[in-house]
Amino acid sequence: MRFKQKNVIWFLLILVAAVFLMCGVSNAADPTGDKTFALDIRGISMSNNFTWILICGFVIWFMQVGFVLLGGLLPAKNALNYMTHCFIATTLGVIIYWFVGFGIMFGGFEFLGHHVGKGNQFIGLSGFMLLGDAYDVRVILLFIFQAVVATFIGSIIAGAVAERMKLCSYILMFFFVYIFIYPVYGHWVWGEGWLWELPYGAGLRDFAGSGVVHAIGGTIGFVGAAFLGPRAGRYNEDGSSNTIPGHNVGYMIVGTILLAFGWLFYDAGSTLAAGDLRMSVVAANTALSGSIGAVTVLFLTYLLSGHTDVGEACNGALAGFVAISAGCAYVAPWAAVVIGFLGAVLYLISFWVIGNKFKVDDPLGACSVHGANGFWGLIALGIFADGSYGGVYGVITGHYGQLVSQIIGAAVAFAWAGIMAFILFKLIGGKNSKSKMRVSEEVEKDGLDIHIHGTACYPEQQ
Amino acid sequence: MRFKQKNVIWFLLILVAAVFLMCGVSNAADPTGDKTFALDIRGISMSNNFTWILICGFVIWFMQVGFVLLGGLLPAKNALNYMTHCFIATTLGVIIYWFVGFGIMFGGFEFLGHHVGKGNQFIGLSGFMLLGDAYDVRVILLFIFQAVVATFIGSIIAGAVAERMKLCSYILMFFFVYIFIYPVYGHWVWGEGWLWELPYGAGLRDFAGSGVVHAIGGTIGFVGAAFLGPRAGRYNEDGSSNTIPGHNVGYMIVGTILLAFGWLFYDAGSTLAAGDLRMSVVAANTALSGSIGAVTVLFLTYLLSGHTDVGEACNGALAGFVAISAGCAYVAPWAAVVIGFLGAVLYLISFWVIGNKFKVDDPLGACSVHGANGFWGLIALGIFADGSYGGVYGVITGHYGQLVSQIIGAAVAFAWAGIMAFILFKLIGGKNSKSKMRVSEEVEKDGLDIHIHGTACYPEQQ
Amino acid sequence: MRFKQKNVIWFLLILVAAVFLMCGVSNAADPTGDKTFALDIRGISMSNNFTWILICGFVIWFMQVGFVLLGGLLPAKNALNYMTHCFIATTLGVIIYWFVGFGIMFGGFEFLGHHVGKGNQFIGLSGFMLLGDAYDVRVILLFIFQAVVATFIGSIIAGAVAERMKLCSYILMFFFVYIFIYPVYGHWVWGEGWLWELPYGAGLRDFAGSGVVHAIGGTIGFVGAAFLGPRAGRYNEDGSSNTIPGHNVGYMIVGTILLAFGWLFYDAGSTLAAGDLRMSVVAANTALSGSIGAVTVLFLTYLLSGHTDVGEACNGALAGFVAISAGCAYVAPWAAVVIGFLGAVLYLISFWVIGNKFKVDDPLGACSVHGANGFWGLIALGIFADGSYGGVYGVITGHYGQLVSQIIGAAVAFAWAGIMAFILFKLIGGKNSKSKMRVSEEVEKDGLDIHIHGTACYPEQQ
Repeated sequence: MRFKQKNVIWFLLILVAAVFLMCGVSNAADPTGDKTFALDIRGISMSNNFTWILICGFVIWFMQVGFVLLGGLLPAKNALNYMTHCFIATTLGVIIYWFVGFGIMFGGFEFLGHHVGKGNQFIGLSGFMLLGDAYDVRVILLFIFQAVVATFIGSIIAGAVAERMKLCSYILMFFFVYIFIYPVYGHWVWGEGWLWELPYGAGLRDFAGSGVVHAIGGTIGFVGAAFLGPRAGRYNEDGSSNTIPGHNVGYMIVGTILLAFGWLFYDAGSTLAAGDLRMSVVAANTALSGSIGAVTVLFLTYLLSGHTDVGEACNGALAGFVAISAGCAYVAPWAAVVIGFLGAVLYLISFWVIGNKFKVDDPLGACSVHGANGFWGLIALGIFADGSYGGVYGVITGHYGQLVSQIIGAAVAFAWAGIMAFILFKLIGGKNSKSKMRVSEEVEKDGLDIHIHGTACYPEQQ
Repeated sequence: MRFKQKNVIWFLLILVAAVFLMCGVSNAADPTGDKTFALDIRGISMSNNFTWILICGFVIWFMQVGFVLLGGLLPAKNALNYMTHCFIATTLGVIIYWFVGFGIMFGGFEFLGHHVGKGNQFIGLSGFMLLGDAYDVRVILLFIFQAVVATFIGSIIAGAVAERMKLCSYILMFFFVYIFIYPVYGHWVWGEGWLWELPYGAGLRDFAGSGVVHAIGGTIGFVGAAFLGPRAGRYNEDGSSNTIPGHNVGYMIVGTILLAFGWLFYDAGSTLAAGDLRMSVVAANTALSGSIGAVTVLFLTYLLSGHTDVGEACNGALAGFVAISAGCAYVAPWAAVVIGFLGAVLYLISFWVIGNKFKVDDPLGACSVHGANGFWGLIALGIFADGSYGGVYGVITGHYGQLVSQIIGAAVAFAWAGIMAFILFKLIGGKNSKSKMRVSEEVEKDGLDIHIHGTACYPEQQ
Repeated sequence: MRFKQKNVIWFLLILVAAVFLMCGVSNAADPTGDKTFALDIRGISMSNNFTWILICGFVIWFMQVGFVLLGGLLPAKNALNYMTHCFIATTLGVIIYWFVGFGIMFGGFEFLGHHVGKGNQFIGLSGFMLLGDAYDVRVILLFIFQAVVATFIGSIIAGAVAERMKLCSYILMFFFVYIFIYPVYGHWVWGEGWLWELPYGAGLRDFAGSGVVHAIGGTIGFVGAAFLGPRAGRYNEDGSSNTIPGHNVGYMIVGTILLAFGWLFYDAGSTLAAGDLRMSVVAANTALSGSIGAVTVLFLTYLLSGHTDVGEACNGALAGFVAISAGCAYVAPWAAVVIGFLGAVLYLISFWVIGNKFKVDDPLGACSVHGANGFWGLIALGIFADGSYGGVYGVITGHYGQLVSQIIGAAVAFAWAGIMAFILFKLIGGKNSKSKMRVSEEVEKDGLDIHIHGTACYPEQQ
């Protein structure tokens, strides 16, 4: 770890030097907002965009509490480790994104009438550390919204690799994901890169990140979980599998409603404009899709097992939210209900397939909730978009072009995140990847919390 | 259960058919917001209404976390069951409300210059499933705000029937409440039906739901708790009563502050207009009334028992919030303090009367907090409204007409919710209502969580 | 206690009488907002200020949940007592502030073009109980925002005096702090009193309360903790110290992210104007400073102890937030990172010095997080302000005047809060201050919760 930290430090120092060289200062920037705001219609409209985007962004950061609380589905002895992963994503994520991720993702992007420096269809090259021209109220508005969105991906991955990954490996992986994998794909879509400009239909559309955030995160998590191997006790010698019970189902319920609350801000805030009144439809679609997801899983688990499994129902709600994220602005409420319903069914099937057929151990179901439903969300947009918004026509309107764009986007996401994650985990883990990234059997048996963090999550219950 | 589920499914299918028949499509609707928004004063003002109402609505959904956490006052063995009830209200509530409740409550209502289809003084007949003309940004804005408000009533009832009701009975009850009891009374008041138009004073006024939400919910909960009978161990053979301790008082504190936070959005957002600056007075009144409620109970429990009972103080805060909900926009801050103080005293008295005189077992005090104070809130408006807002003059200004309207509204709420709930529970429970709605003695002894949900809330603490 | 309560009641009655005498009623006030709002640019701008300030204020109240959850770092047996202190601050704080604190702090202040009655450079004399002229939508807007900010100081102090203070002593202390210590210093700075008008640089500036809230609160907490003496078992006879473990580290993580979320609203909302687009820079600075604080402590604790101590990292984040509060609007993002980094280092050093050199027992590290970093925040503004906002030029621009103002402000805060707190605790505690303010050894041994509140926080785990 110490050796690797040294490497990381050198890497960072070189990055700092490179970044400073890239930052120019011009007179175009407006660090105070005085040039951007005036007491007229355009100024008020601009100010409305600011308050709307800030409020939504602030709440999105809060959603990390929801991710932390999903740790209730893990045994208490490893809960703190998972929560720490989320906490690192929440804080270190902002720093790395400020440092380099934002510039790669949004360099060259035009936002509220202002260009974020240079960039091309494949990568952004400006805005690093918010220096120079990027010291501008509009650029920084975009930064704070996107930085908190970016922190999600670390928590999604944390759910898939929980209970067995070394902290130093997690942090190394994390740097690479935030500096490279996530912002590059993000640039292709949200930074108006080549996927956004695809010539089929309106080009790839992903309103609130089914693809950029969830599909990418779920895929990386899947590769990571496959590399690490299953937790001790997850599979029996005869190939059958066991459920490892959590320690606080109430946390799961609270975390899910908290995420639901945040998701409304996340999706509606992704209009990035207070004057886009479609936001009410976005919000209703989000609430309906997540709700039907929960209800669907609740009834299905009752029919299948005789118990109403609330923990599963919570994941059903999350599956519904992930599935609607891409299409929330483009579909009608009835379609949101259909998308959420199918998302919940997909969650149950994919969770079973990943766990029992692929034998990949995904403690919090992140690969199914975020991965499978992220892809489904991209596809669903191509099917159900009703043409009323943004010129996006799905299959139900008789057009197939949009679906082609969505399928290409999904395939690229899968290939990009899958291959990059494969290389990444090979690099971190070396030849015998499992043993280098994974904690020792003794640590796993005692619980990671005491060994890595020096305390249990609930010290008095030891 | 299976048989009843079949009935429910048939019922739903017939409803769907009826709804589709009722939905017309015209050109008046604006699903994108392009017709509603323009970059001028009116457009900006409209956009402000959208962001304000959406933000407040989103937070109101979050208040369900507060309800979930009140489960800290229940024994751990039944906590998950209560939380599941709240979770079902949160999710299934949105779906049912979308399906039929919203149309019954707001059909015919005019909102932001747009009519939500047809309706009369007694029932609304348009807006079901947000199809046809209701696929409009303004209608859907109203929907999302009202849908999340509607989810409350399920959680209020859940508190009164906690620890002993069958899940299937709860869900059946829930359908009926959301499809019928709640939206019909809601239409009479908020849908500008006959109670809103009462000829005394300004007509019945209920700014943020003391009557529509809390009095109705508390009354249904009271009837349900009376039908179910008390929990095992609540009353001794000599008629004296025991307190059944909770498992996490900290949850109660967190849940209460969370509800307090949400209540500010709920009350201030009930202006349904960003240009109504009275919202600051509404917010201050809400904060003051809840705060004095908490302080009052804190000191009174100390004087009565020698201990400062924080759990009770939390309920005192909630009582203050409920009591001010109707009048928050119409009274001055000093009056809010008086209303909250009296609400807290009323909470303590009614909790004692319901538990020890009526012998109705209300585990979370929902009948006192929401029921008794809901009625008190309606009456208090008629007393303390100072005439500065909305043309509502209370007794302190020398007018008695408003008080008459408020008393009629309260009496109608009590009669409507009480009689309907009586019929409802008779239908669900049959002749021997208690045994059909209530879990078996064995389940109650072991805790509902393991039997119904297949897991304890805290699986490692078994 | 009963005797003192009587005194308090007399004191309050006299205050009420004095307050009523001071309240005049003029025609200038606008309790409805009709005079303040019109459907034109100025009216819309005013309405935007209202929604922005209200939303931020509401979230600030919610931050009390974060404070409550920091109680996870205390033993379970005293957790409820600490949470109750926070709950009292949350509710009683609003009442006292309404009663008298607000008038002292903001009497004479001009807000949104409206004067809050009378006041001079040293004390405000208007606005008590929001009566008379203060029954105005603008004044009440300021009130609700400031009232929730004011509730913080009680929770900060609660962290320093946790696990050993009598509840009645806490409440007596609390009255004095809210009626006098906090609002008077607040008037000097935010009420545009003599510190705000200092002739060096732009005068003392404290954007979001590093000084007014955190330095004052941390200093009072330090004096209180010193008076009370350390908890039993904190120090050994040979002078070495022990760490007293908490009961739920997860609460700490959740509480910290919740506070982070709220801090964004708090800092950005402190623009008190929706048209001040600098708010995006404020938000980014806040997020960056807190994040780097967490990351810094995480790595430093690993280097020092071999464990990544998440609880400490959470305090590191809070230290970063406190440190940036004063300067968040005046510095560039890179400076926010530097300030947060140094704040985290300062936290570790001061925590060690206070605990091991001064032997003052501060259970939650409030003196280091809020006190030390509050002062550092004031100073940092004088160093790093880059002159782009509000005419505030720090040392990095070659001007030293601002730093002089900041140092004077910090020194005054330390002297004022320190001396007043000393007098206060002497008054409460009498000659033998420790024994009168502190619970008995038996109570401390059993835990305060059962003795004072009549129940444990987790009754089933007894």
